[in-house]
Amino acid sequence: MEGPKAILLIGDGLGDRPVPELGWRTPLEAAEKPNMDRLAAEGECGIMDPIGPGVRAGSDTSHLALLGYDPYQCYTGRGPFEAAGIGMDVKRGDIAFRCNFATVNEDMVVTDRRAGRITEGTDQLAAAVNGLQIEEVTCLFKESVAHRGALVLRGPGLGADVTDTDPHVEGTKVHVCKPLGPNDAASAKTARIVNEFVRRSYEILKDHPLNRERVARGDEPANIILPRGAGLAPHLTPLNERQGLSSACVAETGLIKGVAKYVGMAIIDVPEATGGLDSDLMAMGRAVVKALEDHNFVLCNVKGADVAGHDAEPQAKVDLIKRMDAMVRYVTENASPDTYIVLTADHSTPIAVKDHSGDPVPIVFWGPGVRTDDCRHFDERSTAKGGLHRIRGIDVMNIITQLMAVQEKFGA
Amino acid sequence: MEGPKAILLIGDGLGDRPVPELGWRTPLEAAEKPNMDRLAAEGECGIMDPIGPGVRAGSDTSHLALLGYDPYQCYTGRGPFEAAGIGMDVKRGDIAFRCNFATVNEDMVVTDRRAGRITEGTDQLAAAVNGLQIEEVTCLFKESVAHRGALVLRGPGLGADVTDTDPHVEGTKVHVCKPLGPNDAASAKTARIVNEFVRRSYEILKDHPLNRERVARGDEPANIILPRGAGLAPHLTPLNERQGLSSACVAETGLIKGVAKYVGMAIIDVPEATGGLDSDLMAMGRAVVKALEDHNFVLCNVKGADVAGHDAEPQAKVDLIKRMDAMVRYVTENASPDTYIVLTADHSTPIAVKDHSGDPVPIVFWGPGVRTDDCRHFDERSTAKGGLHRIRGIDVMNIITQLMAVQEKFGA
Repeated sequence: MEGPKAILLIGDGLGDRPVPELGWRTPLEAAEKPNMDRLAAEGECGIMDPIGPGVRAGSDTSHLALLGYDPYQCYTGRGPFEAAGIGMDVKRGDIAFRCNFATVNEDMVVTDRRAGRITEGTDQLAAAVNGLQIEEVTCLFKESVAHRGALVLRGPGLGADVTDTDPHVEGTKVHVCKPLGPNDAASAKTARIVNEFVRRSYEILKDHPLNRERVARGDEPANIILPRGAGLAPHLTPLNERQGLSSACVAETGLIKGVAKYVGMAIIDVPEATGGLDSDLMAMGRAVVKALEDHNFVLCNVKGADVAGHDAEPQAKVDLIKRMDAMVRYVTENASPDTYIVLTADHSTPIAVKDHSGDPVPIVFWGPGVRTDDCRHFDERSTAKGGLHRIRGIDVMNIITQLMAVQEKFGA
Repeated sequence: MEGPKAILLIGDGLGDRPVPELGWRTPLEAAEKPNMDRLAAEGECGIMDPIGPGVRAGSDTSHLALLGYDPYQCYTGRGPFEAAGIGMDVKRGDIAFRCNFATVNEDMVVTDRRAGRITEGTDQLAAAVNGLQIEEVTCLFKESVAHRGALVLRGPGLGADVTDTDPHVEGTKVHVCKPLGPNDAASAKTARIVNEFVRRSYEILKDHPLNRERVARGDEPANIILPRGAGLAPHLTPLNERQGLSSACVAETGLIKGVAKYVGMAIIDVPEATGGLDSDLMAMGRAVVKALEDHNFVLCNVKGADVAGHDAEPQAKVDLIKRMDAMVRYVTENASPDTYIVLTADHSTPIAVKDHSGDPVPIVFWGPGVRTDDCRHFDERSTAKGGLHRIRGIDVMNIITQLMAVQEKFGA
């Protein structure tokens, strides 16, 4: 494509805190990463709060903010973005749920919330319930990884304020889905549909050949579907329309692909991207550079650092950073000279926390004309001294589009 | 006046990015400006986002923010502020439009959107249509520079959500003004008035003696007025009332004077201020100091740096900064010792962009008791290391009024 381009490269969970095993350095401070450091030295650095100072961001809410959508306005729960992430076509007004395949006995008591950790054949089970019509509502269902799936209800007059059917504790009866408020007819209708869907899923699945085989083998049958986490699919103006971009996403996980798909970005699948520490980051780098041939904005999320953080493996995080640095080198050397690179994280996943924290993350803007500063290293404490100071996730897209000179002026 | 005073001195478009022709320095970094640097050395510095990080501010939206009015709340389009800027008395509830004098043929096809770039006599044409009564609405019209003018509709029950009459393309018929929504009776009324005003403007102007002369000379007649960009005049509490000030504005352009007039500031005209690179900045400096005799707050906007940025003339921007520096010297030497000086820009107009960018601008607060920092130079990258860190335009008035000790306490 002609004109300025931009790559927003996100190391998932890349931020951290000082780690004793690394001499009280963070993984970014400990890792050799000359190419990330080159971006810091030649670019403008700072720290960034994905949502706000101290707020523990999810990857979905953070990516919404990074793409310019205020998650406090548009994030209605995981359902809609997860469903989009597994390839379902979620539309404004749909009610979306995360679901588990589970095992119940004849009294509707949940004996296994994960249906014996089923891994195969859920596509056949999903196909058997997908498309059910209840009243005038269509029930769209698709399997996700392992025992997971997503349910999308599409029809008139549905509300999202309903309780979960998943009891979250085994040995308990399936919960009846209920509206949260007493006078919410729309949510009452949704609850009615959900309860009927759960009942029919049992009717259909209990005698499904695949479950008969499982029982014959001594496995738990996946004989019911339990929806939870209802969310009303929000209307989000597509990213390209809002920002004047032609955008694509290179990501490893359904959650990120779901957010990107939801805002209308082209999704570029990279078969070598596993979402784990073994992912082929060079293949992702090549996909990013290739995507710039017919897009001017590419979001790329590399998952590995987050995995290492959740697993509390400091050396694995350091090694992932080194491999991500090689990817940065490939991208800087192969993207056209009018390409801006923004390198940051969607949140910190500190080794010491084993989960997302609310610490800010380092960020650098690199490319033609940026106001350089004194930073020489891309890490949490070095970039905190940079010229950008402290910005928020929601600011990032504005800074990118003004650098690319595609942003409308506000006023005269 | 007794008591602390403040000058808010705005270099329009003063911020920039590193410029190759200036050895990758910004114009502020390249210019010799000992007096601005003195303010930086003796004051407290930082960077400022006029609206928010990365947001490309207009001069009007930025000045609203700098004066403490949130433009996202009160900016309803250019119409009301442009009309105020050319001296029209815009009142809350008025619907204001930007207009062109244009040329149409008998079939209402626009043959010249700028009426042969008419420069003279538009005051006579404006007088011929000003004050028309349509239904119970008064149509106030005034000429601006060249082929431009502004229309203000005043009357009960008017809405602002209407389409433009200007087709924006020559060889096309004048567009019929329509309400944007189907059930908006107020905007439907406005559309009806606008269409009748356009029709009458043609009836009145087509045979106007000045147009007969133009046609006789072979010039295009300015035989119709085409309103566009409807905006509902917002209610803004006057600045003096809101902030406990007696305020005045010294500015060069109608747009800035319009904002200042709209918020009730006294407008001080400086005949030697041209709005161009040749403007007499010392005359403006004298006007600022003089205004402090009977006001305690003076906003001064110097336009030249923005002109040099739009024209991509780095040396012209450097020269303008030197001349503005002499003005700063005059003001610091002649204002009373209890005067605070706040020096900043309303936005960056980088040489490389030739238009407003979303880059932050340098800012310094100078005067009795401010917390000094290590900054020694007033430029983009030096002030980024200052004690103020990164603030927003909307914060500036609060900082000024607390330094002046005229701000009410929030709480006990």
